Amino acid sequence: MADLRFFDCKGPFTAGELSALSGASLKGDSMLIIDNVTSLDQAQSSHVSFLDNRRYIDDFEKSQAGLCLIHPDLVDRAPKGMSLLITETPYMAYAKIARAFYPAQMTPSRISEHAHIDTSSRIGEGVCIEAGAHISENVIIGDRTWIKHNAVISKGVKIGNDCIISSNVTLSHSNIGNSVIIHPGCQIGQDGFGFASGPEGHVRIPQLGRVIIHDHVNIGANTAIDRGAGPDTLIGAGTQIDNLVQIGHNVQIGMGCVLVSQCGISGSTKIGNYVVIAGKAGISGHVNIGDGVTIAAKAGVMNDIAAGLTVGGFPAIPQKAWLRQISAVRKLVKNKK
Amino acid sequence: MADLRFFDCKGPFTAGELSALSGASLKGDSMLIIDNVTSLDQAQSSHVSFLDNRRYIDDFEKSQAGLCLIHPDLVDRAPKGMSLLITETPYMAYAKIARAFYPAQMTPSRISEHAHIDTSSRIGEGVCIEAGAHISENVIIGDRTWIKHNAVISKGVKIGNDCIISSNVTLSHSNIGNSVIIHPGCQIGQDGFGFASGPEGHVRIPQLGRVIIHDHVNIGANTAIDRGAGPDTLIGAGTQIDNLVQIGHNVQIGMGCVLVSQCGISGSTKIGNYVVIAGKAGISGHVNIGDGVTIAAKAGVMNDIAAGLTVGGFPAIPQKAWLRQISAVRKLVKNKK
Amino acid sequence: MADLRFFDCKGPFTAGELSALSGASLKGDSMLIIDNVTSLDQAQSSHVSFLDNRRYIDDFEKSQAGLCLIHPDLVDRAPKGMSLLITETPYMAYAKIARAFYPAQMTPSRISEHAHIDTSSRIGEGVCIEAGAHISENVIIGDRTWIKHNAVISKGVKIGNDCIISSNVTLSHSNIGNSVIIHPGCQIGQDGFGFASGPEGHVRIPQLGRVIIHDHVNIGANTAIDRGAGPDTLIGAGTQIDNLVQIGHNVQIGMGCVLVSQCGISGSTKIGNYVVIAGKAGISGHVNIGDGVTIAAKAGVMNDIAAGLTVGGFPAIPQKAWLRQISAVRKLVKNKK
Repeated sequence: MADLRFFDCKGPFTAGELSALSGASLKGDSMLIIDNVTSLDQAQSSHVSFLDNRRYIDDFEKSQAGLCLIHPDLVDRAPKGMSLLITETPYMAYAKIARAFYPAQMTPSRISEHAHIDTSSRIGEGVCIEAGAHISENVIIGDRTWIKHNAVISKGVKIGNDCIISSNVTLSHSNIGNSVIIHPGCQIGQDGFGFASGPEGHVRIPQLGRVIIHDHVNIGANTAIDRGAGPDTLIGAGTQIDNLVQIGHNVQIGMGCVLVSQCGISGSTKIGNYVVIAGKAGISGHVNIGDGVTIAAKAGVMNDIAAGLTVGGFPAIPQKAWLRQISAVRKLVKNKK
Repeated sequence: MADLRFFDCKGPFTAGELSALSGASLKGDSMLIIDNVTSLDQAQSSHVSFLDNRRYIDDFEKSQAGLCLIHPDLVDRAPKGMSLLITETPYMAYAKIARAFYPAQMTPSRISEHAHIDTSSRIGEGVCIEAGAHISENVIIGDRTWIKHNAVISKGVKIGNDCIISSNVTLSHSNIGNSVIIHPGCQIGQDGFGFASGPEGHVRIPQLGRVIIHDHVNIGANTAIDRGAGPDTLIGAGTQIDNLVQIGHNVQIGMGCVLVSQCGISGSTKIGNYVVIAGKAGISGHVNIGDGVTIAAKAGVMNDIAAGLTVGGFPAIPQKAWLRQISAVRKLVKNKK
Repeated sequence: MADLRFFDCKGPFTAGELSALSGASLKGDSMLIIDNVTSLDQAQSSHVSFLDNRRYIDDFEKSQAGLCLIHPDLVDRAPKGMSLLITETPYMAYAKIARAFYPAQMTPSRISEHAHIDTSSRIGEGVCIEAGAHISENVIIGDRTWIKHNAVISKGVKIGNDCIISSNVTLSHSNIGNSVIIHPGCQIGQDGFGFASGPEGHVRIPQLGRVIIHDHVNIGANTAIDRGAGPDTLIGAGTQIDNLVQIGHNVQIGMGCVLVSQCGISGSTKIGNYVVIAGKAGISGHVNIGDGVTIAAKAGVMNDIAAGLTVGGFPAIPQKAWLRQISAVRKLVKNKK
């Protein structure tokens, strides 16, 4: 259960209120008082929990939770006495309930006297800038944005409203939209990996583009996003990026994509909308990935991928073909014996 | 040999003293004065060196070292005039001797006036907090712990005794044990990669757990460890984590594990005790890895692995089976010709 | 086109001047005024662009650029009215022209009163040290070097002339040459991953070497380079290192190498000159890679590689053999059907 040293609980809510705000149908007493959210195995009678990944159905059947979000299929497997919130999308409903108990922390609206803020910068209303943060010339920061300790915002950067720029982040040559969250240790806007090689060695090419990040993007810890070489590097609205991801110069990523930890996208590649790139996958430079593509974990994509495909392996091919290859190689060993 | 700009040498020691503190049997003059440790190829007559990886046996046979740690098997291959410290475990014996010459740097016990320390925090005895570090509300720091320049410790974090928190580290939502070393650029305790996806986009789910790190854990540079989503993310005692490692939310890692650089562990996976995860290996979410498992470099683990197995490849299978597959594919090409 | 919030343009130049400084032959009016560089698809009549990667030949044929760098083979494909700068190496010529329009930013030569500089350090002429940077005891910094916000330079580190040490970098136990660029979030010089394991657990071994970085090296964002365990970790002159790269203790890298994002090199491996290591490739510890080797993306190198070879796959083999394996496995599946 959430440790109160770190989190402020806005509960309790009644089961009826939770039904209303999540859109799930209540089976049970609407006046039941629920004072917290927690996992199935730790929940008590005053808690709400959820079952989404069916790997955990045993935990559900043994859970002491007073109230549980559950798919209609599984209502019959509920333990006796548990009230239910029934929905086709228990994980989304849990998201809404958890956000009601634990809303995103508000910006405290305070400019530390130990922050370093250039007088040419323009700072919005209700902004928080913590000690040790650096705001350079001509930076523009929107309303209610939170710049945490030791974040470095270089000259000319524009940040929208309601953003969080975490500690030990460096931001340069960038335009950041609204409601963007950048987790600690991200480095965004530095030179891309561009040089011409010849007898005189590797000659660095000025990187003259920017990084453009649209609204509602989340970027995980220690991720690196290089600015464009001439065109811009773009991240579309609502895209979710995990930790330790590499995004090269000129990469364009569409809306609503999901980039899982340690994946990497080489320069000038274009990614459509709603693309999922699983952990440790890599994509070559200068290729086009269509809308709705899924790239499996550890895949290596070397060519364009048409919209809607799921690919895996290296070099990446349609996932089913890759699974057949794995199976064929296994049989090969068996036959050898 | 260690550069005195960076290291303080506590030698000399006699060969007899080094035998006593390492537990290795001395063959040679116990009064021999040894003033430094160094590698076989650079050692002189007043130095102690060691041979562990037998790849370097040529260096051993040509070494000028006055004293050398060596396995009993290799005593006959020693050059003339070299004194020997004979032991079944020369690398461990070297560790003890090197730590005698170069003990871990003590905390200088000094709170910089340029550190930012909230008055509600509780700071132990003999602590060092360097300029530019930030210690937020209700942080607890144990005795002799060293917080380096520009480390950021967020509200409520608890750190034990004798820890080192290096520069440009961000620590939030965490309990850290004793004698934990966190190398520069680590980001620990930030939000995990948790969201529910639906027609309204990706809705972030409040991440309500913590990161719990037990005693004697080492964490390499630029590693990222997300806090739990509800349960905690746990790192067991004595576990060694290398650079650029990703540890997702709710991951539980046992005692004495070794996680090599650029490996990644997806959310909610459970790793037993004394597990070795080699470089660039990846493990899916929600799987169980038994005690004593070894996962080879670049392996991709998608299922539970029983205790004691060594696995490799992607999808990972027992290492021997994977090597047979590699061999079968090579033969396939030969037969085709 | 370069955003003037972030970049200062030193143009215009005449076509004749650009021909002279790039060494390309001009076909067109030498007095043509060119005021900027940009990509083929965005260029206007007063801009110079280039075609190198022939994937973009359609953009060339439709480009509005007034002047374009082009290989002699493609002169006939130029749109009417475009002046040409003809050269065998259009990308290198573009590098020179782009650097004329946008020279590397000069160090402003200013020591911030909010930087923390130990009085025992020696700072050269024309140096810039920004607010929040920390310079410890006995650090030596050469002329015109630029230390950005929140960089941490630990005791005894030596940095040459004309370097850029970006924000949120930690440098310890290192000697850095001239004209070295270290991008934000790099961690350099920390302890390597060295310990002896036994019944008493993993015993850390003092890491007594340094990191030596020669002239004209570039190091990408969030890269980690551990110092040597006894010998030094070495990076040869002119080597280009991308983001999120891992370089283990005692690694020696030659001159002019290219290490692409997310590759990793394990401890004590030796890399020759002009080696290319593509994205996500990994190299085991204690191996030797000859001069001029190319290691393909995602390859896993487990043994020595002779000079001049191109290798791929895991375990890495000559690239052609690896491609034959891929093809053989694909046929295996077809034959099964």
